[in-house]
Amino acid sequence: MNLIKSGFILSAMLIAHSSISAELKQLPTHVGGRVLESTTATGEKAYEYSWPAIYFETAFKGDSLTLRFEDDQNNFQLIVNDGAPTAINKPGKKDYVVAALTQGTHRVRLEKITETQESTGKFLGFYSDDKPAALPKRKRQIEFIGDSYTVGYGNISPSRECDDQQLFNNTNSQLAFGPLVAKHFNADYHINASSGFGIVRNYSGIKPEKSLIGLYPFTLHNNQYIYANNWQPQVIVIGLGTNDFSTELKDGERWKTRDELRTDYIGKYAEFVKSLHRKNPKAQFVLMASDRMDGEIANQLTEVVSYVKAAGVKKIDSIIFTDLDYQGCHWHPSAKDDAKLAATLTEYLKSKKVW
Amino acid sequence: MNLIKSGFILSAMLIAHSSISAELKQLPTHVGGRVLESTTATGEKAYEYSWPAIYFETAFKGDSLTLRFEDDQNNFQLIVNDGAPTAINKPGKKDYVVAALTQGTHRVRLEKITETQESTGKFLGFYSDDKPAALPKRKRQIEFIGDSYTVGYGNISPSRECDDQQLFNNTNSQLAFGPLVAKHFNADYHINASSGFGIVRNYSGIKPEKSLIGLYPFTLHNNQYIYANNWQPQVIVIGLGTNDFSTELKDGERWKTRDELRTDYIGKYAEFVKSLHRKNPKAQFVLMASDRMDGEIANQLTEVVSYVKAAGVKKIDSIIFTDLDYQGCHWHPSAKDDAKLAATLTEYLKSKKVW
Repeated sequence: MNLIKSGFILSAMLIAHSSISAELKQLPTHVGGRVLESTTATGEKAYEYSWPAIYFETAFKGDSLTLRFEDDQNNFQLIVNDGAPTAINKPGKKDYVVAALTQGTHRVRLEKITETQESTGKFLGFYSDDKPAALPKRKRQIEFIGDSYTVGYGNISPSRECDDQQLFNNTNSQLAFGPLVAKHFNADYHINASSGFGIVRNYSGIKPEKSLIGLYPFTLHNNQYIYANNWQPQVIVIGLGTNDFSTELKDGERWKTRDELRTDYIGKYAEFVKSLHRKNPKAQFVLMASDRMDGEIANQLTEVVSYVKAAGVKKIDSIIFTDLDYQGCHWHPSAKDDAKLAATLTEYLKSKKVW
Repeated sequence: MNLIKSGFILSAMLIAHSSISAELKQLPTHVGGRVLESTTATGEKAYEYSWPAIYFETAFKGDSLTLRFEDDQNNFQLIVNDGAPTAINKPGKKDYVVAALTQGTHRVRLEKITETQESTGKFLGFYSDDKPAALPKRKRQIEFIGDSYTVGYGNISPSRECDDQQLFNNTNSQLAFGPLVAKHFNADYHINASSGFGIVRNYSGIKPEKSLIGLYPFTLHNNQYIYANNWQPQVIVIGLGTNDFSTELKDGERWKTRDELRTDYIGKYAEFVKSLHRKNPKAQFVLMASDRMDGEIANQLTEVVSYVKAAGVKKIDSIIFTDLDYQGCHWHPSAKDDAKLAATLTEYLKSKKVW
């Protein structure tokens, strides 16, 4: 265990945008996750986001640091030099001035920890009157695609019973298994997950015109910007199926029988993996499912893996996870479960010698 | 003008699926456009499609040819050895047996000519008891992205007034400017267009949750299969804007003023082109617009091109087209206009020495 380095945040305050000093300049930023980048007339970059667990990093030499926000919906945590995280909750259209930083070279990381599904927020960047420092580039990339389990929905809740506000306050996507695994390997990560969605069917059959596959191609949740870039992760972990199968089919849904639903799920999931494989032909795929619903999800997943293997995708395995405590909101995996899932995945990736 | 070669279809008939001869084998098929490919237990391929102007090609040596359909919604034309097209209208779940073919090596091409927006159809392949022949690979690829103009909506209509049936019967997407240009250069083509859609706004503000950008990432119009493959066209031609701007804003739409709509269009169109450029960094982009609406569409397009150029996309131009007769259904470009547009584009591509 390292000692906590200098750079621990002693004090900070949120101030209105207009009062930012003209001497401050935007620091170069490394972005983790899907963002819509825009550039102002004066050359500053802004980053709009919807997906969970987005993060921003910079480094500089000195003691001046201001973060500029335009987000009244999300909670964040700020980490300086591997110190303890500082909460920045729903900052709104404000600047967050970090005071009493020691002089020195600082690595800074801002992490979004909450989930919003209908709104977007903007991070307007790190500012300083000091000089930027080098930020080491990561050689490893991993992507997680999933539902509430991958989001970390209610994972830090003291109780399974949660209202909307309790759910929001007790979700920390950075403590979900995805970021834990990524951080173990010092990998960049994307968490392309959204609670309630499935491969063909969403929780309790809601929003039948939507699915995670329908959201997946887009930079934001509004489906108006296509995400196309050179992101090529070495590992893609998918966990989708809980919402497809966790509730009974109702009248009016498009599958008449459970068997029809299963066949549709298997076919569309297999096509989804094949499309990801075409874009990432070298990636190792891991398909995860719980043992819940008497193994129904796990059984369908086994079929998906067979189909995809038969279609020529060789680097693919499934992990069926058992023995979780589901102490999170509404019987979701707890932070303890997340640590367990992360350990399982980490062991698997080590055994595969992916990195 | 070439003389019509042997292989002209003298007679043909549609028969029920079950009566196909067991000796017939599926011929290798080249597919043009986006299709969802599936494979039966016995190894035959089937192709499901939604987008316009899809085509299928094969070649064989002999005189036996049967086409297998599962589509009661679309009209097709069959072309053998550059002969005159033969119509195959709404074949349903039938086999189309081509009789009285001369012995010899035949190149065969099936083209979808109609537009359907809510349904899909399936082509189950070419069958023969003769041997497959080589089909030369094309080195050129071109993609067209657009709205009804690119679809060829009502382009062969004798009148501007059309009911739904007349519109359907008088649309030939293969005579729209896209396929004409592609065929001039012997290029493979994708026509990723859908009538009524725009960049941010659809015709008369309908279906506000959808847009061509929202449809674009998917293999079929149902948004359940992501299209990801190695298609990398050398040219991408986009024509979108007529539906965004051809009608007045109504109460309840998400833009309060025409200026807001224009700004939104410019921003999202620029991002769309940038995302296409990231996937196809070497492609030449051509953005087309008509001079209608007192130049409003053309003016916004000029802004889009400036934005995209400023973002580092160098191979991009706009073509503003004028003097069309709009004699197609509901004042759409006629087949004559399509030929004119094709000539303009062909000249442009020659001048750019793309091929």
